[in-house]
Amino acid sequence: MLQDSYIQDFLTFLRFSSVSTDPEYHPQVAACADWLIQKLKEIGLKTELHPTQGHPIVVARNKHKPSRKTVLIYGHYDVQPVDPIELWHHDPFKPSIENGIVTARGASDNKGQILSHILGVQEALKQNRGELPVNLIFLIEGEEECGSTHLADFLEKYRKELACDVVVISDTGMIAEDTPTLTYGLRGIAAMELSVYGPAKDLHSGVYGGAVVNPATALAQLLASMHRADGSIAIDGFYNDVRPIADWERSMWRTLDPKENLLLETSGAPQLGGENGYTPVERAWARPTAEINGMWGGYQGKGTKTVLPKEAHAKLTFRLVPDQKPEDILRKAAEHFKKHVSPSVHLEMVEGHGGLPYLMNPKSKLGKIAEEALQTAFNKPVAMIREGGSIPIVCDFKRILNADTLLLGLALPDCNAHSPNETFHLKNLEAGIRLNQIVLEKLSKM
Amino acid sequence: MLQDSYIQDFLTFLRFSSVSTDPEYHPQVAACADWLIQKLKEIGLKTELHPTQGHPIVVARNKHKPSRKTVLIYGHYDVQPVDPIELWHHDPFKPSIENGIVTARGASDNKGQILSHILGVQEALKQNRGELPVNLIFLIEGEEECGSTHLADFLEKYRKELACDVVVISDTGMIAEDTPTLTYGLRGIAAMELSVYGPAKDLHSGVYGGAVVNPATALAQLLASMHRADGSIAIDGFYNDVRPIADWERSMWRTLDPKENLLLETSGAPQLGGENGYTPVERAWARPTAEINGMWGGYQGKGTKTVLPKEAHAKLTFRLVPDQKPEDILRKAAEHFKKHVSPSVHLEMVEGHGGLPYLMNPKSKLGKIAEEALQTAFNKPVAMIREGGSIPIVCDFKRILNADTLLLGLALPDCNAHSPNETFHLKNLEAGIRLNQIVLEKLSKM
Repeated sequence: MLQDSYIQDFLTFLRFSSVSTDPEYHPQVAACADWLIQKLKEIGLKTELHPTQGHPIVVARNKHKPSRKTVLIYGHYDVQPVDPIELWHHDPFKPSIENGIVTARGASDNKGQILSHILGVQEALKQNRGELPVNLIFLIEGEEECGSTHLADFLEKYRKELACDVVVISDTGMIAEDTPTLTYGLRGIAAMELSVYGPAKDLHSGVYGGAVVNPATALAQLLASMHRADGSIAIDGFYNDVRPIADWERSMWRTLDPKENLLLETSGAPQLGGENGYTPVERAWARPTAEINGMWGGYQGKGTKTVLPKEAHAKLTFRLVPDQKPEDILRKAAEHFKKHVSPSVHLEMVEGHGGLPYLMNPKSKLGKIAEEALQTAFNKPVAMIREGGSIPIVCDFKRILNADTLLLGLALPDCNAHSPNETFHLKNLEAGIRLNQIVLEKLSKM
Repeated sequence: MLQDSYIQDFLTFLRFSSVSTDPEYHPQVAACADWLIQKLKEIGLKTELHPTQGHPIVVARNKHKPSRKTVLIYGHYDVQPVDPIELWHHDPFKPSIENGIVTARGASDNKGQILSHILGVQEALKQNRGELPVNLIFLIEGEEECGSTHLADFLEKYRKELACDVVVISDTGMIAEDTPTLTYGLRGIAAMELSVYGPAKDLHSGVYGGAVVNPATALAQLLASMHRADGSIAIDGFYNDVRPIADWERSMWRTLDPKENLLLETSGAPQLGGENGYTPVERAWARPTAEINGMWGGYQGKGTKTVLPKEAHAKLTFRLVPDQKPEDILRKAAEHFKKHVSPSVHLEMVEGHGGLPYLMNPKSKLGKIAEEALQTAFNKPVAMIREGGSIPIVCDFKRILNADTLLLGLALPDCNAHSPNETFHLKNLEAGIRLNQIVLEKLSKM
């Protein structure tokens, strides 16, 4: 059973509106980092608060001994923005608990998951008179939701202090309730903002329409040009570096039947769609995408306003699969848009954050340890999957620290990460506490 | 010289924030109508304030005599919304005067223009001991900017009381400063709002992207599908009823050389564009368009939010030319969008207001009277043009009252109608006062 103090810790953690992308929330991001430092100190770890040019990085460690394995547990204390705020059933930063389910922004992504590791360590330290089986490093950042801007530099700078044998992250999902899940692949990401500028001001669409090219139309044409009729992406060379899905993966994933229904049910979409020749699961896990995250231009108020808008904008992200590279994809996309844009408007493109895709071998020694730890903590067979989301830092851990990462997700498919009414199940907080203890124990004997 | 009291009347008229499309402004629309009634009473006319289900209609008339011609002068006291408000140099409803130019929302469209007629009548009544040469009806509505929703019904209901020989409207533009302009054609309009719905909530674009069709992408594809590469409109049958531009019009318009430069200069667009095979002037005056007035979906805030948005929207207006009909074009557009929409999203279409295009013969007796009146009032040769904008009510006057309309515009090309920092030149208020007196005089002898 979950101690009441653990639940209180969780609620306190969730009350910080630590939205990292919006400057308005920055004081709350800082306050959240301070609280984490306090919490990690209280359980007996040595803490460091590292300021960055963005949000601070929290580091905590036990007393390290040379003979032991070193495990780095990564998480983040920042959260996604809350809009559309009107769809929340209550204030996103006033968590509620109903039927063992906590609702608040950040509940699953990532506060519930990283906290279960902190509480697992707290439990172990209490049970074993301040001892852990491994050298432990907690690395908890505040910029995951805005691209982990300063973390790679931080890893470079403290390469020696952060040296480790393996990284553990719980920031992914379980395929279904009571199905422990090892994620062995992630998609990468590359972000880009498009702005199309036309006339110097919003024009009367009667007086000028027909003679002046409409920036909203020009933008819609660019956005539509990204896809072919078969759902594939029409950017030249986009698929050059895409590794085909292995036959054993396709077969294995076909056994995960509920996942396809889950994509349909949890999304609430009228029906699934996408690239011809692939199942929905394959499209979401192992095929790249070009997605509009937002677009806008002209009049959005009530009624009609017959303007020809002066500008129009779109926020795009490409999800990447091995071996696509963000900078290469952004360059190809920019070429594509330059080629397709109307000469009567002015196009501006701003590159955003990027992250490489990730793939580890689930049949390796580390993969086996992860599988066994999950099976023991949940007492259920383990699903082996890839995920469509992106955790760019996983690639940085490999590149800079030369460490592989175990992705041991605790979030459920209907957790509403990045959506209104985000949830986390208290039983997964509990399972996460157990998992932390088991996985550290197993890794100590690796 | 303009009397100071006339300028004060103008400023008072402009201070009413009579935005008819936005319910927030409705009290100010009503207050503006009340002020007009008061003003028309003061100059010696008999007034009526007719409530509608929307905004009230103001009617005023002198004492009618059976032997005289009856002239109906139409205008509107409602104005366009003010956004983007941040681009205004000052409060749109606190008019400024600089170098004889008044800046405020509604300055040209339509308060300055209709007021010049009211002041012209005030002047004539004063000069001629309360007499006018014609039976006069002022009909000034408060819903022009939202499609004149209740005016056609009003014309039907008061068909007898509003019977007239000719309608005069100053709600169009002059082709250049000091170039009096007769507008003998207008484009019609048909409005439609598109909404594309996909998943039940904004989704994590990593988790679902690729398997769930993005409503913003689906909408962009619909919007892009409206045009062919040559700039023509790809909706089946869209051009079926389009009357070709007459050779004499093409020749006449080619002599109006500055207009093309004006379209470029006053718009501030990088260059003009549009349908192949037509000049910019022809495209704006006599060819139909499909225009995006606004579109939006997903995240518009700072930074990145990697959502797959649940919905996306666009406001469209089609500008129509003779002999296109709004209901026919909306039906064809709806067919087009239904045919092109992805089956994985749900499309909703809401038809908005519509208005027929208008064309009169500028070489008719009425056309000649208009030309002479303009020439006398401005003491300059008259330009004969069509305009790209829409005044649907002109067709209603023809259909219901069987009256032709003289469009005697007083707005300058750079007046920013429908845009921030709308202006009206005091010298055109003065010219409008003269024009009113001359045209009533000439029409009395028709």
